[in-house]
This record gives sequence, C-alpha cells and structure tokens, in this order.
Amino acid sequence: MTFDEVLALDAADPLARHSNDFVLPAGTLYLDGNSLGCLPRAARQRAREVVEQQWGQDLITSWNRHDWITLPRRTGERIAGLIGAAPGQTICCDSVSINLFKLLAAALSLRPDRSIVLTQAESFPTDLYMVEGLQDLLGHSRCELRKVAETDIAQALDDDVAVVLLSQVNFRSGQAHDIAALTQKARENGALVIWDLSHSAGVMPLQLDTWQVDFAVGCGYKYLNGGPGAPAFIYAAKRHQEQIRQPLCGWMGHSAPFEFETDYRPDRGIEKFLTGTPPILSMSVLEAALDTFADCNPQQLRDKSLSLSELFLQLKSGQASLNELELASPADPTQRGAQLAFRHPEAYAITQALIADGVIPDFRAPDLLRLGFSPLYLSHQDIWHSITILTRIMTRETWRHPSHQTRQTVT
Amino acid sequence: MTFDEVLALDAADPLARHSNDFVLPAGTLYLDGNSLGCLPRAARQRAREVVEQQWGQDLITSWNRHDWITLPRRTGERIAGLIGAAPGQTICCDSVSINLFKLLAAALSLRPDRSIVLTQAESFPTDLYMVEGLQDLLGHSRCELRKVAETDIAQALDDDVAVVLLSQVNFRSGQAHDIAALTQKARENGALVIWDLSHSAGVMPLQLDTWQVDFAVGCGYKYLNGGPGAPAFIYAAKRHQEQIRQPLCGWMGHSAPFEFETDYRPDRGIEKFLTGTPPILSMSVLEAALDTFADCNPQQLRDKSLSLSELFLQLKSGQASLNELELASPADPTQRGAQLAFRHPEAYAITQALIADGVIPDFRAPDLLRLGFSPLYLSHQDIWHSITILTRIMTRETWRHPSHQTRQTVT
Repeated sequence: MTFDEVLALDAADPLARHSNDFVLPAGTLYLDGNSLGCLPRAARQRAREVVEQQWGQDLITSWNRHDWITLPRRTGERIAGLIGAAPGQTICCDSVSINLFKLLAAALSLRPDRSIVLTQAESFPTDLYMVEGLQDLLGHSRCELRKVAETDIAQALDDDVAVVLLSQVNFRSGQAHDIAALTQKARENGALVIWDLSHSAGVMPLQLDTWQVDFAVGCGYKYLNGGPGAPAFIYAAKRHQEQIRQPLCGWMGHSAPFEFETDYRPDRGIEKFLTGTPPILSMSVLEAALDTFADCNPQQLRDKSLSLSELFLQLKSGQASLNELELASPADPTQRGAQLAFRHPEAYAITQALIADGVIPDFRAPDLLRLGFSPLYLSHQDIWHSITILTRIMTRETWRHPSHQTRQTVT
Repeated sequence: MTFDEVLALDAADPLARHSNDFVLPAGTLYLDGNSLGCLPRAARQRAREVVEQQWGQDLITSWNRHDWITLPRRTGERIAGLIGAAPGQTICCDSVSINLFKLLAAALSLRPDRSIVLTQAESFPTDLYMVEGLQDLLGHSRCELRKVAETDIAQALDDDVAVVLLSQVNFRSGQAHDIAALTQKARENGALVIWDLSHSAGVMPLQLDTWQVDFAVGCGYKYLNGGPGAPAFIYAAKRHQEQIRQPLCGWMGHSAPFEFETDYRPDRGIEKFLTGTPPILSMSVLEAALDTFADCNPQQLRDKSLSLSELFLQLKSGQASLNELELASPADPTQRGAQLAFRHPEAYAITQALIADGVIPDFRAPDLLRLGFSPLYLSHQDIWHSITILTRIMTRETWRHPSHQTRQTVT
C-alpha cells in the first residue's frame, strides 16, 4: 500500500469532513479516543455559553430560560439515536459506576428468587467493584458476584443467575461480545442483562430495542467526546420501567421534584433513574458534543473505524521491525471494538517513546500498548504517519531502557 | 437609617473588595445565592483553561500534567478550611444525594444493633428520599426512617437511633440548628450524626472537628459558588475512616485505581468515598471558585451576611407597606442561616414582580418569598435598593393578580 492509496481512502471517506468539527491537538496524532475523546468545536462554544451567559448572567433563571431541567433527558435522547433506543428509555446522569449500582439493584428486584450476578473476570474493574459493593450491602443470599472467563459465560447461565453484566468490548483486548446472541441466551435462562457500552457507544452500531436488551450503561467521555469525566448514561427498556424502583432515589427522580414533597414518588418513566442535581457544565458540554453525530449513522462510524484499524494492521505487517508487537486483539474485525492492543514486554517504554514523538496511545499493565481508532477525527493519513513513527521507534534502541517513571493513565 | 449610613457600612466592610472577584449579572440585584451562587472570575478563567488547553490540547496527558487525578482531594481540602476540618477528612465528589447514601450505609454499619435514621420532617426532600431508598433496599429491620418535628429531635433520641441526619439550616425558613449541642446529645445516646451543610458551608463558621461531628455532606453550587450542579462534598472524621466501607465502591475509591485489579481494595483514607470518574470540568470550576475564599475566614462571612440580613429587616420595618410580608425565619440572627423567608399568600406573584424589576429572590411553595444574603458579592447598598424596589412593588396593585404561569426553581 502506497501513501497515494492511503490518500485515496481519505478522499473517499464520507466522514472525513467531520475532523473540522474538532479542535485537534497541535502536532499530535491522537490514538487514545477510546480513553478520552477530542474536543468538539460545538462543545468549546457551549462551555463558554453555559459558564459566561447562562450561569454568569442568567443565573438561577437558566433552569427555565435555558432549560437546564430537561438537560439529562435531552442528552439521553441524543445518545438513544446512537444505541438503537426509541425515545423515553435513555437518560444522562452520574457516572457509569453509580448507574450500574442503580440498575443492579433494580434488576435484582425483578428476580427475587435468584441472586447471582454473572460477569466476566476481565470486566472493567469498576463494574466488578460495584457488584461487590451491593453484595456487601445486601448479603450473598440476595446478590452474589460470579466471575467467569469470557468464553464460559453462556455455559455458566444456570437457574440461579438473576443478572448478566457484561462490557460489550473488553477494555484491554478490544474483544467484542455478540449482544444479540448473549441477550437472547440470558432471556431463555430467565436472566436479565445489563450491558456496559462504555467502549462501544458512538463507534459500533447498536440495536438495543431490537435485541430486547433489558438495561445498559455507557460512558460520555470516550467515543462520545463529552469531555473529561462527562456524565454517563442509562438505558432501561420501557417494559421494565413502571415496575422497577432504584435505590438512589434523589429528588431529581421524583415525579414532581419542585413540589418538595416529604415522601418519594418516583417518576414513572426513565427520569426515575435520576438522583441529585446534575453537573450542568459537564452535561451541557456533552450534549453539544453529540451534535457532531447528528448526520452520521453508527454503521458509518463502524466502517470508518474498522477501515482505520485494518489499515494499521496492513501497514504494520509490511514492517518487519513491528513483528515483535504481538496482536492481543481479535484479528477478525467483526470480533473487536474500535481499538487494537499489542503485547510487548517493553510496552510501557514504547508508549512513552510514542508520546515523546507526538503519537498518543495508552498503556495497560503489564504489557499492552493500546490504540483507539476514533472515526470522527482520525484520517487514514494519520494511521500512515503513526506507523512511520512507530517503525522509527522500534528500529532504534534508545527506548528500550528508559527510566521507568510511574505513570497513570485512565481508560 | 439613611442611604449615607448604608454607604458607610459598605465602606467599613472588610469583604467589600471581593465583589470584584465575581462577574455579576448586569442590572440585577441577586438575592438567590442560597440557590445558585454567582460566577467567580477565577471560575470563568478556569473553565476556559480546562476546556481549551487541558482537554483540547493536552487531552489524556492532563490526568498527570494538570493533576486531574488529585482534583477531588484538592477541592475537598479547600472546603475543609471552611468547615473546620483538619486535612484528610474532606473530599469532593458526586451529588449531595449520592454522598448521603454512602454515609448512611457506612454509618448504619457502625451501629449494627440499631436501625433508626432520625431526621426532621422539614428536611430538604432529597435527604429524606435517600433514606427511603436505603430503607427499601435493606428492609426496615436495618434502616428505618423516623421523621419528627424540628423541636422534637433531642427528645426522640432513644436507644434505637443509629444515625441522626439533619440539615444545619432549614431550606425554607433558614432556622439553624446548634450542631455542637445536637452532636453531643446524639453521641451521649450512642448515635452517629450526619450533617447536611448545603445551606451553611461557605457562609457560617463551622468547627466539625472540634464539635466531634462524625460525618457531613454539603453542596458546591450555593454559597461555594461552584456553578450549576457543581459536585458536592463529604466529610468523614478520621476516627471512623479505617473501619468503614461504603457501598458505592467504584474504581476511583480503590487504593490503586490504575492497577485495574479484579478485587476491590478500598483506599484507607477519605478517597474510599470516591466512586466513578469525576466530572472534571464542573469540579475544576468549583476548585477555582474556592480561590475567592482564600483570604477571608468563615466568621467574616457570617458577620457580613448577618449585617446584610439585619439591614434588610431594619429597612423593611421602616416601610409600612411591607408589613404584610410576615417573617418566617427566626428574628434572632443567631438562630438562622444566611437567608430570610417571608410568608405572603401572593408570594409567587411578588417573586415574579421582583424578577421583572431586576431583583432575583426565589419562591418556595406554597407561600414563601426567600432571599439569600451571600456575603462575598452583595453590598449594603444592594440591600437598600432591593428594599426600594420591593416597597414600590408592594405599594402598587398590579402584581396581585398576574396569570400564574408554572414556574420551577431549584434550591
């Protein structure tokens, strides 16, 4: 593959113009959108408006004048379009962790004769921790965490399983589950599902309604580009909404929050998943970031992302010096999300060398180099240049023994 | 009292220069800082930096480069200085509602032979709702909400009370509890206390350590001026930290979050109260807002606030047309927080008329006009002008029967 062929891929890319929607970091090839997405111009503009006009000038009247009160619902409905959810089932609030707690408690209450929460040992840790927290609170007779290997999930589905909690995409390897198949299998076994879409919303085509998913959560700051620590979201299928009650029942989930009633009366719909006052700045910025998705459908996002990662693999295979980077993700693109992970004993040092040379990936202990292929702002040219820089690094020796400073990264 | 005398009060006010630290709304007298504080200049500047430089340019590297990772702790320690807490006991996170849930569960686990959460019926509703949520989850044998009248709290403290949960300042009337006395009384009865400082942090002198308070929560967007929906805070006394475990145990509360361990190992200190990834934009803005408090102590804030509210009452008493506004707050300033509430059957219409004339109070159903006396940006002149406008409204008749549009306001 030549550079001209790479340029031709960009010329034919229907999403190419979207890179103009972002403020991209100067002199940097950013392959970490799986951890923190880039800044959309619309988000930058909204941040100024919310801080300087809405807060600064209009103050408390903004709850009505700028409709802060419906912000969680409006933001949720924009996300709904990306996950295959009809209106009234998606809402923006809190963090993935807290939202999981709400859904776990709600789902367990729908299966009172069962107690197992089945998940995979390789889940993103906070998903496991939140089950542990509920287990400690309720006791093992009502909530028991069962962790199995990724490949053993289907066969572990017995009559004690109340809830199957899974990340669609493994945060390390990028391995993707078949939501439709596993949801059906769970349903056949009388279990409910909670899908964590943190590494897939905004980059994979999702059909939660069609697949009869019960519940889902997802992250606002990865492929949705909502900014650092952007609020998360909850999906709860309409068929469950009326009968469930979630325990973090703060005033924003009340059916009439501004009546200031002494007793809790939950909203009958998706608003019952709200708790406290939302962080208006962070949530407004996420809402604006979702503008960028207005005219592209999830299949386009998926096609572009796979085109980028397949190009990376193809170009890599042409460079002998890159052979020592062992693919830790599925080679079959249909089996993975929007990231690639490579195993190397010096992955940490390679990550640092890449950052020093203007390519931002991330490192996952003990030995993974992780690269994200975010479709809205990356081009095929960017992949070409990244491979060039990676090859340069792998053919020199200086990166192999740098001082190992402690470095923290965030998924 | 003459206008010159009012000007003399401002001239002698040690906090007067702080109004320059804020971007104040044009042509408006803002008496709703008890609901949403004004925009500090430092917060406006920080919002731009965090969005445009830290997120936009430095992206994922900001976790280290701009120290996002310690933001909850740093912000908490700034609040600690306002509530009389030695370091290591205060952290910024989530909402008041969610933080109450964490503390309620933790406190109940310290009193396993007791189940009552004693509170007052007039609490801010979300405080009651969160106890209800935990009660539903755990059953009445482990958590039972007992609501009594404000005046009956001390005598309701029997051997079944595990936790006393109270707002220091009543959100409607402004009536303030004596934290020291009630905390001691609770301790003598073997109960723990959780104080909700939402309407007092940043405006009343607090000595949580000295008073041997067990736990507290508070709001970031009222007197702390952290912006709409700013994250809240938790105080947990050092003596309890090691033995308690809170159920919303997400990855940010792990003792080594970036090790991505499969099992939860809580941080040993105040960080164990963290859950998910914090909303960095909203929390950074709150941290910057707290700069404004750097060189003023809580007693100065208290003195100024009471000087403003006492002036309001004094000027009001000189206007016969204002007699029909009946004080619903304690007349004794030592018995109230930083707000005044007035009862009037047409309080809603009066509120609307004030807003139309550039004075922003708020309305609490069914009949309260509520005014907040935020000490950092209000002057005694502002109070004079507010009284002038209120008098003008009360002496004309047009406000008495406007169309009653639905209006929502937020505490």
